[in-house]
Amino acid sequence: MNRKIIKNVNILTMNKEKEIIENGVVAIRDNLIEAVGGAEILEKYKAEEIIDGRDGILMPGMINTHTHAAMVVFRSLGDDVADRLKKYIFPLENMLVDSSLVSLGSRYGIAEMLLSGVTTFTDMYYFEDEVAKAAKELGSRAVLGETVVDFPSPDCEESYGGLGYAEWFIEKWKKDELITPAVAPHAPYTNDSQHLQNAFLLSKKYNVPMIMHVAEMDFEIEKYKSEYNMTPVQYLDSIGVLDNNFIAAHLIHVTEEDINIIEKRDIGIAHNIGANSKAGKGVPPLKEMYGRGLKVGLGSDGPMSGNTLDIITQMSLVGKIHKLFNKDRTLFPAREIVEMATIGGARALNMDKYIGSIEVGKKADMAILETSSVNMQPIYDYYSTIVYSANAGNVDTVIVNGKILIKDKNFTEFNFAEVREELKKLREKIKKTAEKLV
Amino acid sequence: MNRKIIKNVNILTMNKEKEIIENGVVAIRDNLIEAVGGAEILEKYKAEEIIDGRDGILMPGMINTHTHAAMVVFRSLGDDVADRLKKYIFPLENMLVDSSLVSLGSRYGIAEMLLSGVTTFTDMYYFEDEVAKAAKELGSRAVLGETVVDFPSPDCEESYGGLGYAEWFIEKWKKDELITPAVAPHAPYTNDSQHLQNAFLLSKKYNVPMIMHVAEMDFEIEKYKSEYNMTPVQYLDSIGVLDNNFIAAHLIHVTEEDINIIEKRDIGIAHNIGANSKAGKGVPPLKEMYGRGLKVGLGSDGPMSGNTLDIITQMSLVGKIHKLFNKDRTLFPAREIVEMATIGGARALNMDKYIGSIEVGKKADMAILETSSVNMQPIYDYYSTIVYSANAGNVDTVIVNGKILIKDKNFTEFNFAEVREELKKLREKIKKTAEKLV
Ligand SMILES: [Zn+2]
Ligand SMILES: [Zn+2]
Repeated sequence: MNRKIIKNVNILTMNKEKEIIENGVVAIRDNLIEAVGGAEILEKYKAEEIIDGRDGILMPGMINTHTHAAMVVFRSLGDDVADRLKKYIFPLENMLVDSSLVSLGSRYGIAEMLLSGVTTFTDMYYFEDEVAKAAKELGSRAVLGETVVDFPSPDCEESYGGLGYAEWFIEKWKKDELITPAVAPHAPYTNDSQHLQNAFLLSKKYNVPMIMHVAEMDFEIEKYKSEYNMTPVQYLDSIGVLDNNFIAAHLIHVTEEDINIIEKRDIGIAHNIGANSKAGKGVPPLKEMYGRGLKVGLGSDGPMSGNTLDIITQMSLVGKIHKLFNKDRTLFPAREIVEMATIGGARALNMDKYIGSIEVGKKADMAILETSSVNMQPIYDYYSTIVYSANAGNVDTVIVNGKILIKDKNFTEFNFAEVREELKKLREKIKKTAEKLV
Repeated sequence: MNRKIIKNVNILTMNKEKEIIENGVVAIRDNLIEAVGGAEILEKYKAEEIIDGRDGILMPGMINTHTHAAMVVFRSLGDDVADRLKKYIFPLENMLVDSSLVSLGSRYGIAEMLLSGVTTFTDMYYFEDEVAKAAKELGSRAVLGETVVDFPSPDCEESYGGLGYAEWFIEKWKKDELITPAVAPHAPYTNDSQHLQNAFLLSKKYNVPMIMHVAEMDFEIEKYKSEYNMTPVQYLDSIGVLDNNFIAAHLIHVTEEDINIIEKRDIGIAHNIGANSKAGKGVPPLKEMYGRGLKVGLGSDGPMSGNTLDIITQMSLVGKIHKLFNKDRTLFPAREIVEMATIGGARALNMDKYIGSIEVGKKADMAILETSSVNMQPIYDYYSTIVYSANAGNVDTVIVNGKILIKDKNFTEFNFAEVREELKKLREKIKKTAEKLV
């Protein structure tokens, strides 16, 4: 038995009552939260280690509900290129993505997430086994889906080879404490109905998530309109692949009827406002979806889209862009946005029973934001400070599953500098290939 | 004579050709840039001090073209309150703002700007003399306008008292090397035409800027529509107060005809997208204004609106929100956004002859962004990295007028921790007053 105590922190519990405990104390026993309260905890419990939070903000670890972490190796490439997915990203990936790129990119991307207080992330990419190994190495919690597409991909010579890979991958990781394996058909328009149903059966068989980009692209909307006179959400429902294990990224172009379906099927929503805005794609009806109590979490999307993997950046954008689109500065008070970034994300992943808030019995996944940097003062409202003033660099301490991974803004064990130097070397190779594409 | 050399940096000159010099060198002689180039500079010049940029990005100091720095003391108060200016901010200010609050708030706010690489800022507030003294103390360049309103304000018992204060203030500071004094009527709707014309005459008499919030509020548009059948821009032009010394903040609700007037009168534009979006106010037609070659700079607005005072945050929002509103991911490539943050801002302030780019003969105002933090790699495009990956915490070194103010992310001389502790004390008093307002 190992016990740690965190003291001198202002705790945003994100429990049902949204309780805030100023000058609070948390006890962690092994990988679980044992006690949450005030100074009395210091008297009651003896700990191996006492962490002084130095008047920081202790919040649940943030949850990134949608990314492709390994794509960080391509960050800052072709940001302003038109029709980028088909003309730039797919060709680039086919030329360059292999297991070593995914391994390196995932380690770097997960490092970025941990350093920014993200303790659980959802990923879909190729060679997902490398992502799982990287998450284990760094100590992050993760929901990982192998991508399925109807064309040869970097890790499968055959179309739909991802389905076989996914089953092998799920079998391999299904009992892991940190990793939740999943299957991830890329999008409705890159999978036919038969294979989408096969993916769904796999998700059913193992009771694991099915992750997909849905209602993101203009051409996607047109395709289902002209071929089926349906929206993508209606189409997916008509072929029977939607249930509470389904996690949909984006859902930009959804109708009132789509929202009814999302509610009825209890789908998780990964809202990626940064990526959606930078790509000029559109703004999902978040006011309606959140207002209906749907399972809304936040995501960064891949670092070619996002471009950073932290969730603090997304929170600020959620507030600003939705207030703007609704011409209503009172919409989404900062507390609701912090909720989406923590317990909301946990709900979207069906993991809210054990992560997403600082409550006794939950896994000890949490982050401390320091409050000594210039942008972090004064504080009249902790939620506003996080949403509108903080940046990823303010995260000081990060704990996942009871283990301290980040302290004083650096890894306690992982050698980040080594990975960064490897990435710089890979950059040279990528740069040469990318130059051929422009 | 003092000479400094900066080496081992990737220079974004922001000159006319937008030249980038990798592994570049800059020589600074006293307060001016003496040479910009490569390794040859190291051989040619002897320096008292050599700064190793450690493969960072050297860019012109950023320019914040619109803020109310002292309002940082109120940051995170009432962020989501409706009709906030009249119901919350004006009463709060009348109860609390005095010269000591402005002095403390300005020192704190200017510290935040310098730490984030802002080397010139434009401010309008009360007790502007305190802001000038704070800017001098910290070493920042600044354009400072005393606010004029048609009601008693914290520093003037009489309506329009700001006009007299402004003239005294301009006389006092007009010869200062770092401070450009100005007059700042708050907005068209808080000043009558007679006093706006008086302010304009003052601006003419001393050849100093006239700063004003214009076309920001819905009620403002309605007022000028119903009373004059004009837009605010047309109204201001009709009373003859617009010329190239005029700096307009916001310009959200402007028509095609307004843009013609702005062009004809050669007005400077302070674009505050973060504040405009968070308040749900609207999106200025930046595509049209920038496309016409108007003088566009970026601003944070006050920290109750912004909420941070850095310009890096604004750059990311400019890209995302305008791409979104125009449904065009190719709009505003990152380079153009960095341009607005530097030389564009200098143009808006009519200071582009001596700041805004890294060119021989210009004032040595510049910032180095480190590239070792996780969010800053890999770099394929320096502009994209700054606009979409960097945050204020990545700024490592800041030089204003040839003097190194920030090194290794900390002040070389100014005692920031002391000001922070003073601010925390003031917070207690402000909190009690603010609680009465909700
Ligand atoms: Zn995605
Ligand atoms: Zn303002």
